[in-house]
Amino acid sequence: MAITAIRGTFFDFVDDPWKHVGSEHEAARFTLDGLLVIDDGIIVAFGDFYDVAPSYPGIDPTVIADRIIMPGFIDGHIHVPQTRVLGAFGQQLLPWLNDTVFPEEARYSDREYAREGTERFFENVLAGGTTTVQAFTTTSPVATEEFFEAASRRNMLVIGGVTGIDQFAPEGTTSTPEQFYADSTAMIEKYHGTGRNLYAITPRFALGATERLLEACQKLKQEHPDLWVNTHISENPAEIAGVLQAHPDCTDYLGVYEKYGLVGPKFSGGHGIWLSDNEFARMSDSGAAVVFCPCSNLFLGSGVFRLGKATDPDRRVRMSFGTDMGGGNRFSMVNVLDEAYKVGMLGNTLLDGSTNRVTQDLAQSERSKLSPYRAFWSVTLGGAEGLYIDDRVGNFEVGKEADFVALDYTAGPPAMPWHQELFFGASGPTTMEEAAHALFSIMMVGDDRNVDETWVSGVRLYKKA
Amino acid sequence: MAITAIRGTFFDFVDDPWKHVGSEHEAARFTLDGLLVIDDGIIVAFGDFYDVAPSYPGIDPTVIADRIIMPGFIDGHIHVPQTRVLGAFGQQLLPWLNDTVFPEEARYSDREYAREGTERFFENVLAGGTTTVQAFTTTSPVATEEFFEAASRRNMLVIGGVTGIDQFAPEGTTSTPEQFYADSTAMIEKYHGTGRNLYAITPRFALGATERLLEACQKLKQEHPDLWVNTHISENPAEIAGVLQAHPDCTDYLGVYEKYGLVGPKFSGGHGIWLSDNEFARMSDSGAAVVFCPCSNLFLGSGVFRLGKATDPDRRVRMSFGTDMGGGNRFSMVNVLDEAYKVGMLGNTLLDGSTNRVTQDLAQSERSKLSPYRAFWSVTLGGAEGLYIDDRVGNFEVGKEADFVALDYTAGPPAMPWHQELFFGASGPTTMEEAAHALFSIMMVGDDRNVDETWVSGVRLYKKA
Repeated sequence: MAITAIRGTFFDFVDDPWKHVGSEHEAARFTLDGLLVIDDGIIVAFGDFYDVAPSYPGIDPTVIADRIIMPGFIDGHIHVPQTRVLGAFGQQLLPWLNDTVFPEEARYSDREYAREGTERFFENVLAGGTTTVQAFTTTSPVATEEFFEAASRRNMLVIGGVTGIDQFAPEGTTSTPEQFYADSTAMIEKYHGTGRNLYAITPRFALGATERLLEACQKLKQEHPDLWVNTHISENPAEIAGVLQAHPDCTDYLGVYEKYGLVGPKFSGGHGIWLSDNEFARMSDSGAAVVFCPCSNLFLGSGVFRLGKATDPDRRVRMSFGTDMGGGNRFSMVNVLDEAYKVGMLGNTLLDGSTNRVTQDLAQSERSKLSPYRAFWSVTLGGAEGLYIDDRVGNFEVGKEADFVALDYTAGPPAMPWHQELFFGASGPTTMEEAAHALFSIMMVGDDRNVDETWVSGVRLYKKA
Repeated sequence: MAITAIRGTFFDFVDDPWKHVGSEHEAARFTLDGLLVIDDGIIVAFGDFYDVAPSYPGIDPTVIADRIIMPGFIDGHIHVPQTRVLGAFGQQLLPWLNDTVFPEEARYSDREYAREGTERFFENVLAGGTTTVQAFTTTSPVATEEFFEAASRRNMLVIGGVTGIDQFAPEGTTSTPEQFYADSTAMIEKYHGTGRNLYAITPRFALGATERLLEACQKLKQEHPDLWVNTHISENPAEIAGVLQAHPDCTDYLGVYEKYGLVGPKFSGGHGIWLSDNEFARMSDSGAAVVFCPCSNLFLGSGVFRLGKATDPDRRVRMSFGTDMGGGNRFSMVNVLDEAYKVGMLGNTLLDGSTNRVTQDLAQSERSKLSPYRAFWSVTLGGAEGLYIDDRVGNFEVGKEADFVALDYTAGPPAMPWHQELFFGASGPTTMEEAAHALFSIMMVGDDRNVDETWVSGVRLYKKA
């Protein structure tokens, strides 16, 4: 038994703040002086220090002072082999893939390069406060092996799989349906459920997939119904036009994945910017999830995700947030929240009736506002729900796995300390409301510098220099 | 004579890159091993080290190694008394002003608070690499005095003035037209042209101005035709509706300022998101400038500025870029370029015909893409042209004032060094193309951390810790 205990100020969620419009604090939990007790990576006790400590006589907790300790961030959509090419100039999705991304991804067939890139990937991820990723690798099993091996060395909960793409991409970045099926089967056997690794059947996107590749995905899902399915959906208008041309029997993008039985629980579609109301409704009904990637959506100019639509209580769609690094230009989910707030505010204005009375929808307009409660829920418990891993991570409930971050609320650009002083004194936030203010400041004024420590399975893997 | 000399790698502009579509490098100047010689704050020589040095025998230059030295950034729109409330949660323009901004600004009538806030303001500005601001203060002369005094202590070129607002704002943040006229006159006399201070007649925005206040502005401009005029324009749909209601004889927002003779050279309208084609054309014809503030436009959800429209060669509008801090949530123009690129890319997609064939405009779509040349021109020489101060600052021409920044191209988040290695080796960028890559990486992957030193009038005022 390897007991670890952490004493500090904790902030996590017990429910979805969008279900508590006007009283979002009811979805959160603030523990000013808390104790988290971990046994072999699993949370065995959590609560107020003086309630929990008596059950652990002689325990000597690690004190993390002057920080807000939150569950580790969950990145629902990220590309390992784009670590080096994030923030590449000048193009929308399709030419950007051809000119920048595919050539770099091809290098990950080389084991040495793949290993170096994957190590750097995880270093960046952890420095951003992220403890779980759902990731794309490449068509090469080498890249997928390196991904799971690097995650295993860190004991991280990750979801990933061999990427399937068999058309509209250069040689060296594609495979055949048969090869994809064989590689996927081998990787599933080797990695799914070993340690904290989880496997996702990963057709890159409908445009890059022939019918035969999608049939291979369908077969894999039938053979392994417990697997995840991770892909892209409705990111860019030109992409969507291409998808409908490549799959002329489908009337919309979601329909392609539905045709092959892929849409349901554990299905993630990255982006979903241009999903129709009808597609949103079908995703809601099926239990599928959309991954909102605002840095990428803005960086590639893809469009404005309809946050208030996805969170419609009548047809709620599961959702995680993602960096989509390298389409997204930042590794940290803190930066993602900055951009997510801004995308939400654009939606807020577009829906409030001031630009178009016909499309006025005040409730949807309000839901587009990303409060600190909604924001940090989305990258912790909400993200876990979106990925169907909320039985394992997402908050500090007993029995869950101990992944967390310590946020330094006065770090960041020099503007931060005086700004934070508006909301609380030198002793830091002492109420949930003050802590929520601090979190909002972190996401809008701060950045990855506010991530001071990142812990995975009860072990500290990152400490800011 | 106080001669200072700087040796290093320099990057500046000699023309507008938007005039060189397809060959933007023609607008730039890259000096791998350069020498900048400064005499009492004025550039007296600039060029390749071995060309310039012989004229200054015995000179012992300060070597700034492993950096790109650029002209200091110019922030065309920023609010001094919002230093503390940047990044405040949850509202569009008008409620945000009432709930967050006006109460904080009222505190700047107190000299002690104003002094502290203004000192912090300049510290943040310099840490972001900005050497010139065109700033809003408050209606209180105290805030304006503190602004010009703090700038004078640093010998900075600044533009500012007493803010005019006499309706739709709480007591303590408004003045009367008579008081505004009297305060403005006193401040003009005291500060305009003293040191590097320049004065702007500053009606806050048309919504907050009665006809009598605008008449006072007109009178000031007639009495002092060499003054700047700084205000807001067409930021938010609800604001515009209010303006047209308050000024029923005008058919558009620009028309209000035109009616009082304020629109022309040295006029700056912040935002201009919802300007009509006709308003853009009139601004172009008159020589007026728009200030693009993307962080703010996204943070307040105001909308998507039409970058490709403003840069239409047939009706080009002068332009500077601004943080609009605290409507903008960042102090550094590096962050502004990140968001400006994203706003441009949204425009790129909206104009390429993929969402709407009727509005397809491929040339405008292309102009919306913010290349590193366009970007850094916009915050240096372009910004200076927008503010009509390009005779004094903006590049390294002999006779100009020596304001510059040293950019560290490997600083920033941990993702940066490996990314930069893609474009150049350990010795740093050695060609203009490599340097442009480095600059783009700074704006998209980096942030204020890439600003290593900021020099004003030939004196180093900031060095990153």
